[in-house]
Amino acid sequence: MSAGWFRRRFLPGGPLPAPRPPRPRASPVPYRRPRFLRGSGSGSGPGTADAPRRPDARPVRSPARGRALPWNAGYAEIINAEKSEFNEDQAACGQLCIGRCEFGAEEDREWLTLCPEEFLTGHYWALFDGHGGPAAAILAANTLHSCLRRQLEAVVEGMVATRPPMHLSGHCVCPSDPQFVEEKGIRAEDLVIGALESAFQECDEVIGRELEASGQVGGCTALVAVSLQGKLYVANAGDSRAILVRKDEVRPLSSEFTPETERQRIQQLAFVYPELLAGEFTRLEFPRRLKGDDLGQKVLFRDHHMRGWSYKCVENSDLKYPLIHGQGRQARLLGTLAVSRGLGDHQLRVLDTNIQLKPFLLSVPQVTVLDVDQLELQEEDVVVMATDGLWDVLSNEQVARLVRSFLPGNREDPHRFSELAQTLIHSTQGKDDGPTGDGQVSYDDISVFVIPLHSQSQRSGGH
Amino acid sequence: MSAGWFRRRFLPGGPLPAPRPPRPRASPVPYRRPRFLRGSGSGSGPGTADAPRRPDARPVRSPARGRALPWNAGYAEIINAEKSEFNEDQAACGQLCIGRCEFGAEEDREWLTLCPEEFLTGHYWALFDGHGGPAAAILAANTLHSCLRRQLEAVVEGMVATRPPMHLSGHCVCPSDPQFVEEKGIRAEDLVIGALESAFQECDEVIGRELEASGQVGGCTALVAVSLQGKLYVANAGDSRAILVRKDEVRPLSSEFTPETERQRIQQLAFVYPELLAGEFTRLEFPRRLKGDDLGQKVLFRDHHMRGWSYKCVENSDLKYPLIHGQGRQARLLGTLAVSRGLGDHQLRVLDTNIQLKPFLLSVPQVTVLDVDQLELQEEDVVVMATDGLWDVLSNEQVARLVRSFLPGNREDPHRFSELAQTLIHSTQGKDDGPTGDGQVSYDDISVFVIPLHSQSQRSGGH
Repeated sequence: MSAGWFRRRFLPGGPLPAPRPPRPRASPVPYRRPRFLRGSGSGSGPGTADAPRRPDARPVRSPARGRALPWNAGYAEIINAEKSEFNEDQAACGQLCIGRCEFGAEEDREWLTLCPEEFLTGHYWALFDGHGGPAAAILAANTLHSCLRRQLEAVVEGMVATRPPMHLSGHCVCPSDPQFVEEKGIRAEDLVIGALESAFQECDEVIGRELEASGQVGGCTALVAVSLQGKLYVANAGDSRAILVRKDEVRPLSSEFTPETERQRIQQLAFVYPELLAGEFTRLEFPRRLKGDDLGQKVLFRDHHMRGWSYKCVENSDLKYPLIHGQGRQARLLGTLAVSRGLGDHQLRVLDTNIQLKPFLLSVPQVTVLDVDQLELQEEDVVVMATDGLWDVLSNEQVARLVRSFLPGNREDPHRFSELAQTLIHSTQGKDDGPTGDGQVSYDDISVFVIPLHSQSQRSGGH
Repeated sequence: MSAGWFRRRFLPGGPLPAPRPPRPRASPVPYRRPRFLRGSGSGSGPGTADAPRRPDARPVRSPARGRALPWNAGYAEIINAEKSEFNEDQAACGQLCIGRCEFGAEEDREWLTLCPEEFLTGHYWALFDGHGGPAAAILAANTLHSCLRRQLEAVVEGMVATRPPMHLSGHCVCPSDPQFVEEKGIRAEDLVIGALESAFQECDEVIGRELEASGQVGGCTALVAVSLQGKLYVANAGDSRAILVRKDEVRPLSSEFTPETERQRIQQLAFVYPELLAGEFTRLEFPRRLKGDDLGQKVLFRDHHMRGWSYKCVENSDLKYPLIHGQGRQARLLGTLAVSRGLGDHQLRVLDTNIQLKPFLLSVPQVTVLDVDQLELQEEDVVVMATDGLWDVLSNEQVARLVRSFLPGNREDPHRFSELAQTLIHSTQGKDDGPTGDGQVSYDDISVFVIPLHSQSQRSGGH
């Protein structure tokens, strides 16, 4: 993406794009639940996995007993309470096989392509929380792992080296090239981080094309965990969350991206490109929406460069609707969207205007690396990944308490990690007085992966 | 500052500014050492405080015995080893008296201005590390505290409330205004943070005007500690550093802003405004400068949106000089500057070009708040502030060890905090085998404040 592209795409006055040849409209993206739910019943009632929800039942669903997910991970989901016809969450998991060529001199190239490829094997778990329709989340669940495999294959030669080579062309141009890579502190894991960043962007472009072709709309958040070479990479774009739960430790593995947490980035963009607000919004933040009575008063405000607050005299332009408005769960970007990173939303506009949301959204994830091989793993160490519906109601500590109280009593049950995922969801439904006790209720879609780490520490040599 | 202003100031093709009337050139900013060094000798040899350095002697200077700085803080400085004729560091400290009016109804206003003002009293310590000449640092030392006082007086009514009022006009427009401030989590300390942010920007504008008027150039970093209402605010723009040293704890109170630590922000600006590079620089980061031989090779790179690394095929445009080049101490912005935040540098251009540095520099500081009243202070708890020359050679832990080994044996000496500041500087000169032992040498200007916290906890009620 170049600055010129950004200006042509989002700003007025750029050259008109050449008219596209009419293209036959693709059929809409079919609705479905995750493949690994096929043949599953539900934890608390009947229901077929691929049907939209029935208004009279909100079953918690898990994979059928006997169907193992990677690392024997557990999964459960629940549809929202009548917010939408479809569950807008989607999930995916599976093995990642990354084709791998050995380094070779220039003359060996042709021969190498005839060689049987080696594979670097990893695993992949992903949650997508859709909005504005289920299509983007479904496309992301169908696509992102392929984008990631492609991006990893482009750098795999560098990943298998202790330090990535500066050149990926089989030879050094400068004898001191390794030294420069050393000085920059570039590690093999930085290539995986770069591949995740690129894969999210590539997937975002695919979703944009597919939705345009099928005449659909929508967007989704994306939270992805990838195990590779003894490390777990957690990439997050949106407001889902992953945490590590151990006996004596709860460690966040992601942070949320919302209009509140990304206020300065978003205000900064509106400062640089005021055209994006079309004179309809103010980029300044105030404690509440201002109105005529406030004119001339000195009122608290924050601009893009400020973390603190100051006072200003209210002018007419301050009465416009704020770029970011509301607090916490209610915070909205341009009055429209509750997340500031994710995939899709290429066509999303502020209601009844031509103002686009997409320039303010980032598809780039933040990536955290957990060095699993360096942890002294215990049997009940798990990673819990879930969409925001869970975290709206349960704190990290409450989830950790539920994990620690559930697992020790269920060591023999091979399905226990899915049972735990179900337990987590049940405790958001205000039905049982579990260890959390306060009985808060979530009416949102919720999807949960519970990934056990212990059994993998033996196997993880196999890459 | 508006986006329009930014475009007119830095981008080509904007309307030409109206010619300014010729203004009599002001006299150059006179060189001086900090006022509180007047009459001082030096710790390790003679020397008058206000003279430029003599090439044969590098005395460590402290305030004269008997001259007390706020909170009995200690100070010491040393000039660089022949890098420049003048010591480009500057320091300032003193009391801040912030005029304060009580709230009152509209009709009481006139009467209030006749009232004797109350004062909110604080203290102020500041270090400025100049580059490109001493003028900017001297102007900052002369000016920043006045800017800060003015900015604090503009919000003091809000500061003395437990929660700042949404309106600073003496009344609520909406009955629910306090609730909005509560929900936003706006605290009195956020007004001090906002005032510090605004004061740095105001001071930067003053320096720009004064340097232009006197035909001088240069810039400086700024590190400021302010005590107010039982809290210590540390504001930093540049690569100086402040740490809290306690018996069992070393806590950073600032982080450094360099082309390396602010890479993504700087690359992002060059992405948005490629004109700023005038076709002479590439915004991409590579492990080393590329050259003709690299063309067509796949090489490691990072762009503004990436924290990880990826490979790209080298093109001609990648052979340009990098926007950010070099590592660690050697990292430079546009081949010119080692810091990415600070004051001044309004006229700074890349050598032999018209390319400006200023658009990439921020004058906004990052502010950390230390809740001194909440610490269970012990007698030897201090804050150490110093310019980068100290931290190039000593780690936080090494400084903490020196503090802990020096203070207990010198409890009776009223001058001991300046003695400690001198000891810290001496241990960067590779002369004595102190507790650090490794005898690294700093050839840079160094200035150090040591601020004791303990004796203040009794007094701090007096605001």
